[in-house]
Amino acid sequence: MGSAPHVVVLGAGFAGLEVARRLHRTRAQLTVVDRHNYHLFQPLLHELAAAVLQPADIAEAVRRELAPREGLSVLMDEVKGIDRASRSVHFAHRTLSYDYLVVGLGADSSYFGHDEWRARTFSLKSLHDASRLRHRLLLALENAAASSDPALRRWLLSFVVVGAGASGVQLAAALADFSRTAVAAEYRSIASEDVAITLVEALPRILAGMDERLAEDAARRLRQKGVRLLLDTPVEDVLEGGVVAGGEHIEAATVIWAAGVEAAPIAGWLGVEPGPGRRVEVGADLSLPGDPAVFVIGDNALVTGEDGKPLPGLAAVAKQQGRHVARVIMSRIEGTALPPAFRYRDRGAMVSLGRFAAIADLPRLKLRGFLAWLLWAVVHLGTLVNARQRLFVVWNWMWAHLAMKPGARIIVSQEGMSEPLASGEEPASRRRSA
Amino acid sequence: MGSAPHVVVLGAGFAGLEVARRLHRTRAQLTVVDRHNYHLFQPLLHELAAAVLQPADIAEAVRRELAPREGLSVLMDEVKGIDRASRSVHFAHRTLSYDYLVVGLGADSSYFGHDEWRARTFSLKSLHDASRLRHRLLLALENAAASSDPALRRWLLSFVVVGAGASGVQLAAALADFSRTAVAAEYRSIASEDVAITLVEALPRILAGMDERLAEDAARRLRQKGVRLLLDTPVEDVLEGGVVAGGEHIEAATVIWAAGVEAAPIAGWLGVEPGPGRRVEVGADLSLPGDPAVFVIGDNALVTGEDGKPLPGLAAVAKQQGRHVARVIMSRIEGTALPPAFRYRDRGAMVSLGRFAAIADLPRLKLRGFLAWLLWAVVHLGTLVNARQRLFVVWNWMWAHLAMKPGARIIVSQEGMSEPLASGEEPASRRRSA
Repeated sequence: MGSAPHVVVLGAGFAGLEVARRLHRTRAQLTVVDRHNYHLFQPLLHELAAAVLQPADIAEAVRRELAPREGLSVLMDEVKGIDRASRSVHFAHRTLSYDYLVVGLGADSSYFGHDEWRARTFSLKSLHDASRLRHRLLLALENAAASSDPALRRWLLSFVVVGAGASGVQLAAALADFSRTAVAAEYRSIASEDVAITLVEALPRILAGMDERLAEDAARRLRQKGVRLLLDTPVEDVLEGGVVAGGEHIEAATVIWAAGVEAAPIAGWLGVEPGPGRRVEVGADLSLPGDPAVFVIGDNALVTGEDGKPLPGLAAVAKQQGRHVARVIMSRIEGTALPPAFRYRDRGAMVSLGRFAAIADLPRLKLRGFLAWLLWAVVHLGTLVNARQRLFVVWNWMWAHLAMKPGARIIVSQEGMSEPLASGEEPASRRRSA
Repeated sequence: MGSAPHVVVLGAGFAGLEVARRLHRTRAQLTVVDRHNYHLFQPLLHELAAAVLQPADIAEAVRRELAPREGLSVLMDEVKGIDRASRSVHFAHRTLSYDYLVVGLGADSSYFGHDEWRARTFSLKSLHDASRLRHRLLLALENAAASSDPALRRWLLSFVVVGAGASGVQLAAALADFSRTAVAAEYRSIASEDVAITLVEALPRILAGMDERLAEDAARRLRQKGVRLLLDTPVEDVLEGGVVAGGEHIEAATVIWAAGVEAAPIAGWLGVEPGPGRRVEVGADLSLPGDPAVFVIGDNALVTGEDGKPLPGLAAVAKQQGRHVARVIMSRIEGTALPPAFRYRDRGAMVSLGRFAAIADLPRLKLRGFLAWLLWAVVHLGTLVNARQRLFVVWNWMWAHLAMKPGARIIVSQEGMSEPLASGEEPASRRRSA
């Protein structure tokens, strides 16, 4: 190793960013690489999709998240492969060698072997996903408002969300609020009841990871908002313009996939066997077994919690792991005592249920309704990194929820983004399948 | 005519929106059609391109601009033709018949017969244009920061703006401010002086339509900001990756075309001869000569001002024309006295020159510097329609200008948008031409 060891962090999500933030009291050279130039606050993506927030409200340039300092480089590039023998990472535009490598590249949607479903559904993992869904939602309303064909209108105004985990539940609630407020206020020819939101879940209950009574409360609130819950109902097929679930063919112009995730394909790059969800098993210090120079964190790491189950893909897990790895690397570089084995401190989970409602499943406290919403809002706003964003988002939020007016809803056309709805016609496949 | 005459307004720009707003004290049915679902506040597009403002700051859904009311429909569709004989308009997805038709479809960039230059340049007429330019600007900085090839860096950091009218001047100033603030703060490997901004103008002076002394002041301020002015220099050729102007080959990854506009192709649709800039000549009441049912306004209309010159393509002109046409139509429908011939009341023009500087060419007052900037800001913010936006933008503005930190600068990748810079390499054509 040279005089200044080189730490390469792959991914500027919650995990990677935390490593970079904590790794400053050391002489290491630090390079953070992400394929985007921004860090995304994923837990609020559903608010972007439902046109409450704007992209800039929940994303911030990595360069700004990490104050410029000696030895820190931020690069925008895409990983193509990792060569552990020569300690180097191949990117689309360069190759970097490392002394320590931290992999936190996050997860993508998983379609349980039905990759053809990807093109037929919307997902909610990236800024692009959420913008695309918002675009579709607004276009569907415009086209429905302009159509006098009842069957076409019904199809355009039907939304199916597959998967009732936190992501699917939050989205369904946000869509329901959106259809009540925006539709009522601005589309004279559409009644709120015309918008059909169906939440399909293979398990017998929603929010499987959370307290059962809280989940029941959430289910009740969703139903109050007009969301149709189909529990115990695995999706059998996804068509263009609908799904088949529980033997029923549900027609819907917009199907949103929130049913499963799998890690980025890092196991192959690292030359190890992937675990469940393509995650990679790591040791007690979060390094790769047999290679103390490589750390895997966040959604990429398979770490078993105290209850014997794998840790969930939460921002809190990612951040705690990032902090831990920063400590381990600093100890190694500085030759000080290593920290004890990584242990996740579960501070609970929260799920937003739209306007003024949420559930909070905390270690010693179960909250629901307005109080839970307040807590949810404070925690999420408090975590948004800089003051500009915080004020912005508070303002947006207040506006959206108090005045019952959702945020700006402009459809910025993106060349090359094929939108069958833009033609105002049903896709041919729907006519076939209907 | 039936009981409720049908007024169809094409375009929700400043002109069309004003017609719709003013046309409410009448029993007319009103349909407003635009190919986008939003009204765009064009005078602030350069602030979007330079990453000071966000799309939602300067655009608002037409549905929200026009409060819902009996008899008003808002549609999103694209004009394909107009049949004056049958009084109908053909759109991509429908045909509407009208009793009164108002055409306010705005203008697009014009390339003086060199249509191949369109694909080689960025323009600044639409939200998409501005987003694309901002995307390019940020990518160019990222790629330059990551490159160690001095020639490639110089090329990436070179920006040419063609045309020193209000649009080109405002953009050049905004780019110069951006490169000073953002580059200095966040790109350790780029110095502000590395960014080269060249403003090329065929005429011997900038801002040809404005007071000469004010324009000289503006030119001086641009030079102070580091903008290179090439006056009296027509562009001879636009290459991929540069321009030839005044015999000089200026290499630049980003060329922005702000040199000319021409109206949407409405003359052909209306079956009349187009005037200069494809505008259509109209009568004293802004109706088409010989067809009192059709009105042409805004950038589409060729109207001669009191100085004998055609009225410029300004928001103020469009709005006054919209107001006039609303009055004429209401008088006709209600059978009241027609208003006198349209007369443009020139309240002056203003050009922003970036942080704390502008010029204001008012009928009895010439302002420059901070005072002009203050006036510019008040007028432009005051015109942004709703309170939500106004507060937002004021906040953004203060943040950008007082804290010298530009707004959020996230690069939202748009699938299908081909960006040679994303590959980190120079386009092949540049290697050929260089």
